[in-house]
Amino acid sequence: MEDLLDNPRLPRIQYIRALRQRAQRDRTGLYWIEGLRIVMEALQLQAPIETLVVAPELLRSAGAHELVHHQRQAGVACLEVSSGVFHSLSSKDGPQGLGAVMRQRWDTLPSSRENAGCWIALDAVDAPGTLGTLLRTADAVGATGVLLAGATLDPYDPQAARASMGALFTQRLVRTGFEEIVGWARRHHYHLAGITGEAADDYRAIAYPAPLVLLVSDEQEGLQNEWRDQCDMVVRVPAIGRSDVLDLAVATSLVLYEVFYQRGRSAL
Amino acid sequence: MEDLLDNPRLPRIQYIRALRQRAQRDRTGLYWIEGLRIVMEALQLQAPIETLVVAPELLRSAGAHELVHHQRQAGVACLEVSSGVFHSLSSKDGPQGLGAVMRQRWDTLPSSRENAGCWIALDAVDAPGTLGTLLRTADAVGATGVLLAGATLDPYDPQAARASMGALFTQRLVRTGFEEIVGWARRHHYHLAGITGEAADDYRAIAYPAPLVLLVSDEQEGLQNEWRDQCDMVVRVPAIGRSDVLDLAVATSLVLYEVFYQRGRSAL
Repeated sequence: MEDLLDNPRLPRIQYIRALRQRAQRDRTGLYWIEGLRIVMEALQLQAPIETLVVAPELLRSAGAHELVHHQRQAGVACLEVSSGVFHSLSSKDGPQGLGAVMRQRWDTLPSSRENAGCWIALDAVDAPGTLGTLLRTADAVGATGVLLAGATLDPYDPQAARASMGALFTQRLVRTGFEEIVGWARRHHYHLAGITGEAADDYRAIAYPAPLVLLVSDEQEGLQNEWRDQCDMVVRVPAIGRSDVLDLAVATSLVLYEVFYQRGRSAL
Repeated sequence: MEDLLDNPRLPRIQYIRALRQRAQRDRTGLYWIEGLRIVMEALQLQAPIETLVVAPELLRSAGAHELVHHQRQAGVACLEVSSGVFHSLSSKDGPQGLGAVMRQRWDTLPSSRENAGCWIALDAVDAPGTLGTLLRTADAVGATGVLLAGATLDPYDPQAARASMGALFTQRLVRTGFEEIVGWARRHHYHLAGITGEAADDYRAIAYPAPLVLLVSDEQEGLQNEWRDQCDMVVRVPAIGRSDVLDLAVATSLVLYEVFYQRGRSAL
């Protein structure tokens, strides 16, 4: 076992701290999670872990000590740090003294057609919390996975990871481009459905065929023209209040649950 | 017209800056909003404004200049500040140079029974963004208003205000206690429905009577026992993923939309 690291300027610590930044995450293929709950979930779901980071002074619960002990015995690299160093890594007010450097998982577009299934394709979702909430709903309804069009979205952003409540570890994630999604969907005869405020059809008034790709785009501007033109069907979520635009994660969740019910509440 | 204020330490500026803190908002009954879009919405919806805060150097659009001009003519107090002072007030990266100090609006529990309607009663929602998203959905389905049980929730938190996308200006907001909500609901023959993962009934399998109070509580712990015991009905939102708990704003929105559809898509 190594000595406890107590200097926040050590290169190893700076390297981990830099994972807050997108550029460092992209460069290394790693990301940072913290808190007893999410680390336990990551381990339970066998998400690939690089290093466990522990601040013994901050670790309160017996369960946490046991977890660290087991992971060490299983050969997982553990970094022991001082309370001060952990605070320098943490973005929480009262950090629990347990974090982990994780390896990102990325899937590719499947090369054969799946008969059932529902992929969610996201365009410009700019709030990481919204992306995390979407992953969480995708997990809840058993969606096949999430396609991220373009480079702006990072599900491994700490805020997205936190909001996903562990769905990050279960959902298949594919980063690709818009053209690739459409080409792939056409080749494999996926149906493309889009959500947009301008659609004529109410989201509960139509039948969703399988397999499906649900196209979701930024809430301010609705579905982009190039996306909408590719859709086999577009639906809208009605709203009668002062604003006709719902929160993106809410609107998408409403449609996903409608598909879920149409399929008899079995996995999409 | 006054001179442009360029010292961020002026008491008037410190007073506004302190509105980031809950204690200052509670003490003064004021709150702070910023950005062209939300300020315009506040004015359109006739939310009570205390002072318009303008940084002419930052104000880019012609629309913004016109808005300030009109408000001045209408007798609204305008504070002109330097770019530096505005940055000291703002929590945005690229502030637009327009903000406002607003007066909080609070309703009380209505003293007579309304025949239709659906109130949403919230217990411990700890994320201001979640509260804002809930207000936005409440507005979208024409809910009657939101009852905030206990003192922990502040819809006038800057993050909640931003996430509400203006619904903050339209929803009736009542701050009260749990006992008061239950007593009031019983007296006026409101039906109490609760959302909890432990409920036997699926949220789309039951009929929601009117008038309704929908009880919503913290996502981690579900509906508290004391709340659940008071409910005439409890429903659950099914989830088949690794976590059986959805995001609170998403779960509540699903139930609100179900009620909305059961009432023929007219205002709750």
